[in-house]
Amino acid sequence: MTDSNRDTAPEAVVARVRRGDRRALARAISTVEENRAGGPELLAAFHEHAHNARRIGITGAPGAGKSTLSTELISVIRASGASVAVMAIDPSSPFTGGAILGDRIRMQDHIGDEGVYIRSLASRGHMGGMSASAPKVAVVLDGAGFDVVLMETVGVGQAEVEVLGEADTTLVVVTPGWGDSVQANKAGLLEIGDVFVVNKADRPGADDAVRDLEMMLDLGLTEDWRPPVVQTVALEPKGIDELWQALESHAVYLSDGELAGRRAARARRETRDAVRELLLAEILDRSGPAIAELLDEVSAGRLDPWSAASKIVARLD
Amino acid sequence: MTDSNRDTAPEAVVARVRRGDRRALARAISTVEENRAGGPELLAAFHEHAHNARRIGITGAPGAGKSTLSTELISVIRASGASVAVMAIDPSSPFTGGAILGDRIRMQDHIGDEGVYIRSLASRGHMGGMSASAPKVAVVLDGAGFDVVLMETVGVGQAEVEVLGEADTTLVVVTPGWGDSVQANKAGLLEIGDVFVVNKADRPGADDAVRDLEMMLDLGLTEDWRPPVVQTVALEPKGIDELWQALESHAVYLSDGELAGRRAARARRETRDAVRELLLAEILDRSGPAIAELLDEVSAGRLDPWSAASKIVARLD
Repeated sequence: MTDSNRDTAPEAVVARVRRGDRRALARAISTVEENRAGGPELLAAFHEHAHNARRIGITGAPGAGKSTLSTELISVIRASGASVAVMAIDPSSPFTGGAILGDRIRMQDHIGDEGVYIRSLASRGHMGGMSASAPKVAVVLDGAGFDVVLMETVGVGQAEVEVLGEADTTLVVVTPGWGDSVQANKAGLLEIGDVFVVNKADRPGADDAVRDLEMMLDLGLTEDWRPPVVQTVALEPKGIDELWQALESHAVYLSDGELAGRRAARARRETRDAVRELLLAEILDRSGPAIAELLDEVSAGRLDPWSAASKIVARLD
Repeated sequence: MTDSNRDTAPEAVVARVRRGDRRALARAISTVEENRAGGPELLAAFHEHAHNARRIGITGAPGAGKSTLSTELISVIRASGASVAVMAIDPSSPFTGGAILGDRIRMQDHIGDEGVYIRSLASRGHMGGMSASAPKVAVVLDGAGFDVVLMETVGVGQAEVEVLGEADTTLVVVTPGWGDSVQANKAGLLEIGDVFVVNKADRPGADDAVRDLEMMLDLGLTEDWRPPVVQTVALEPKGIDELWQALESHAVYLSDGELAGRRAARARRETRDAVRELLLAEILDRSGPAIAELLDEVSAGRLDPWSAASKIVARLD
């Protein structure tokens, strides 16, 4: 009964979420994540309230300590009075799935704190699902009123790395000895990082790892921003304040320059994705039965997919 | 001069490719991979000649020996008289990029053999690029006349795993001791494999790895097909004939049953993706200037992406 009485108008949902209704927030995220009906309207409504929350991407190999670092960063962010949401993107990879569930348990430190919200995004099995839904979820969390959105991802595949394109600042986490295990493409790693952290810095080789990073960063210097390298021991915790300062200085650098441009590009990208999604919904709506017939032709091998698609699109006239 | 005289009609391109013109094939792949103009027409033309080449996906952690196995499989396939194309999908991941270039060098065994074609697909930096382009490239190779298409991918991320959904048969490559390094999600790995191979089987722990796999496969048995587990030493090479027999028996199993259904589902999926792509091109073509204006509004923050997208789609009327 309660459910049927609930006002599901997008503005009403956003209002409930902004008053702190966590079930409403969870439902809103699921709606946009799974492309359910009403998603586009919800996103438009959340955009109305989005204040450009600060988005920080955190990436690193499995086992580098990303979740522990996130937990400690949450404490620092909360101490500053800001609220924070974490989107943990679980690639569910057969090879590097990692101990995501175990990691989440650490985050229980923050359960009961209304200024913290943690959400794992499913990804596996939906073609383009994660890269498509991560920006949407970020909009919901922004519109919900969180000041900082942490986007945690294991940077192992294309989709996972692309999510970082949605962040304002990207933090790359490595551990002592990382250079030995990463045989190739250190350049790619250096390219995506705005701030680097050598975590587990109490282990042997930490100084070497820092020196290696510094050297490579010096070589690759092409921009105004020279990514700082910070040492942390997240488990103690040690070095977290220094890390936060490094992240803050990148925020200052951005706001002096390219932040507006980055966000404008992001908005354009989001619009393009939205057009693609709405167009498909529209055409299915208009000529569903005819499309079903064409799809049957394709299934039976009597028509090729691209000719079928041309016929479907031609129906717009 | 030669270039401007070249007939670029899709049928002419396909004819050249089918006569063995490798430069034309490389250009055709680039056209569909990079979504250049003429791609949809080319794909429709290649579909005309596609004979449903056998698609075999090969996946495994970096260093498992996938490329060496591919090289040896090529030899067995060629000995049987069939032609073969390899699509190597390089995730260019900062963390697991791997020695793709070095691996490719091994494949030089087959240089000069007209029945073999090897192509690495770039993936990094294009949102949805790889998952979207892999099926298209497979169609081109099929229409080009190759009997077998090997799709080699490092199964580390969502996009990489999804490519395997395009294969008829998926081969999962592990090495002795794989269980220790894969902490979680063995279930996901078991789920995607039709045939398993323990490569580097001359190393300690090979028998344990086989036994572990067999046990887990017995537990998970829900289908008619029980994936076989084969031992190989690709570098010698040893066990390759047995591996090929295992792949052959899966082909027989499929053709007795679900192959037609799998391929019909694939064709429907391809049609849906094609519709999405053509729709976007169509609407940009029709109302480009109006869209540019709306995008400017979005960039300036005066309009949210989803409301802008609604306005754009509404212009269809």
